[in-house]
Amino acid sequence: MKSLLMKSILALLLLANAAFAADPLPSWNDTVQKKAILTFVEQVTREGSPNFVPPAERIATFDNDGTLWSEQPMYFQQAFTLDRVRALAPLHPEWKEKQPFKAVLEGDLKTVFAGGERAAIELVMASHAGNTTEEFAQIVKDWLVTAKHPKTGRPYTEMVYQPMLELLAYLRANGFKTFIVSGGGIEFMRPWTEKVYGIPPEQVIGSSVKTKFELRNGKPVLVRLPEINFIDDNAGKPVGINQYIGRRPIAAFGNSDGDLQMLQWTTAGSGASFALLVHHTDGEREWAYDRTSSFGRLDKALDEAQAKGWTVVDMKNDWKIIYPFEKK
Amino acid sequence: MKSLLMKSILALLLLANAAFAADPLPSWNDTVQKKAILTFVEQVTREGSPNFVPPAERIATFDNDGTLWSEQPMYFQQAFTLDRVRALAPLHPEWKEKQPFKAVLEGDLKTVFAGGERAAIELVMASHAGNTTEEFAQIVKDWLVTAKHPKTGRPYTEMVYQPMLELLAYLRANGFKTFIVSGGGIEFMRPWTEKVYGIPPEQVIGSSVKTKFELRNGKPVLVRLPEINFIDDNAGKPVGINQYIGRRPIAAFGNSDGDLQMLQWTTAGSGASFALLVHHTDGEREWAYDRTSSFGRLDKALDEAQAKGWTVVDMKNDWKIIYPFEKK
Repeated sequence: MKSLLMKSILALLLLANAAFAADPLPSWNDTVQKKAILTFVEQVTREGSPNFVPPAERIATFDNDGTLWSEQPMYFQQAFTLDRVRALAPLHPEWKEKQPFKAVLEGDLKTVFAGGERAAIELVMASHAGNTTEEFAQIVKDWLVTAKHPKTGRPYTEMVYQPMLELLAYLRANGFKTFIVSGGGIEFMRPWTEKVYGIPPEQVIGSSVKTKFELRNGKPVLVRLPEINFIDDNAGKPVGINQYIGRRPIAAFGNSDGDLQMLQWTTAGSGASFALLVHHTDGEREWAYDRTSSFGRLDKALDEAQAKGWTVVDMKNDWKIIYPFEKK
Repeated sequence: MKSLLMKSILALLLLANAAFAADPLPSWNDTVQKKAILTFVEQVTREGSPNFVPPAERIATFDNDGTLWSEQPMYFQQAFTLDRVRALAPLHPEWKEKQPFKAVLEGDLKTVFAGGERAAIELVMASHAGNTTEEFAQIVKDWLVTAKHPKTGRPYTEMVYQPMLELLAYLRANGFKTFIVSGGGIEFMRPWTEKVYGIPPEQVIGSSVKTKFELRNGKPVLVRLPEINFIDDNAGKPVGINQYIGRRPIAAFGNSDGDLQMLQWTTAGSGASFALLVHHTDGEREWAYDRTSSFGRLDKALDEAQAKGWTVVDMKNDWKIIYPFEKK
């Protein structure tokens, strides 16, 4: 009996050792950024640590565009919007003469983007509303199957960051609940985040249109209205976090000025906290941009990160690979 | 070695047997209502069952007032509102002459309630806004420590239904994620639902005021504004479920017409689903009310439950005890 016990204990020790030895972030180079992540997680999860945080309070929030997947040459949801406008054009002959639709149909993206937020909202409302929530989810899924990124030719859901996938899994393995907190559309993300990131719909927070409950021939549906319900960006991110989660995250991950207030809110709690910005420095493997970019501008938040000692990931230097398809 | 293995296996079998034999709903009488719950859970959790639902999709939503705790002689949040108005009165000398505040301060509840929804909203805005989210949570917690129910003299959080606590635990033990979907204030519930119901803040959906992110001396706060953000009642319940959870529940529990659309939405999915109404039939141990009550009116939903075969709990007949403090 003793030998069986001893063997069992030895086997357990070996397993524990193997688990300990395996690198949870294999696509991260051994730089201070990786070390900062590992140190923070160790501090909040080790029983008896002065910074210990109970599992229920281990909330981590992630921006999506530019933090979990790429956002160039335009936000991927904008590519979806343009494709939707083109697909719906036969039902709207008036769009041929009406901006910003005319520019979309003529492929004149310069004019489309020159229209600013007003044009963007008009395009989103025309392409994201009018159907039921179930119909819209299906439209998103169908689009993702066929749409290809203009630079890589890959489906958009393959242009996610391998190091961030590892980080999500590592945090969850350490008892964290991972949330997306994105300026993007909540119903544009929910159909695929569980499969791609392991994040279920109820942990996705984003911008939204209003919906209306209706009985259609006795069958209840939720109809998407062409009216903004919530913009989950900038100061809207802490508002969204409070509204959906109801407690303060202890770790937040972003890449742009749109994430600044989320990082401020996260690091203003009473216990240990962690804030990280992904800095797009790799013009070869991804894109290099920050202070003057149209998409994902990183300016004020970069200054504040430097002043406050937040972790700033230098993609070129800190990440061994960018996308999962680069894996050998 | 063989004997140790045999002993271990026997011990495991005994444990499994004990777990199986224990009644998960000991405060429920053995009526068809209890049987309906057990049958549904068995059908959706047993591998190979034609109605099997994967754990990630086992979403159960619960109304709060009248479904998880009592709601007489008024919604408990209304008692909180009246107490808050009284506490704030010294800062508002004008309230002595201004309705509905005057009536509150004079203890004239008849006039208060005669003011209807408009008066109610005015009182809620005056008593629930102006502070930060953290201050408000503390006010709720402090109130719950001292406030007593006028009939039982118990703290309000003790006036929860023991059979429903057992049901929540039973569903969670079977892989369900339990949510509150209440017309009550989301920030009135979140400070205590985890302790009382085992439901964490991120699984509480309710009505809300708008909030605003601000930096106060460099410290970020969320200020509660006297402006309605969302009313999570009636047709608002499916809207709130979609907004917060992003998938359709497979089980929903309510007690009033305010829950009708949630039950319609839940039972309109393609797979197995379960809808239950708590019918307040016990005038002795709790309260007896339905079609004409001011609080928690149950009229249309009762008719629809009967027409559609939803489970209707007869509190007097189906529940051995109502409150945890009745336990021997």
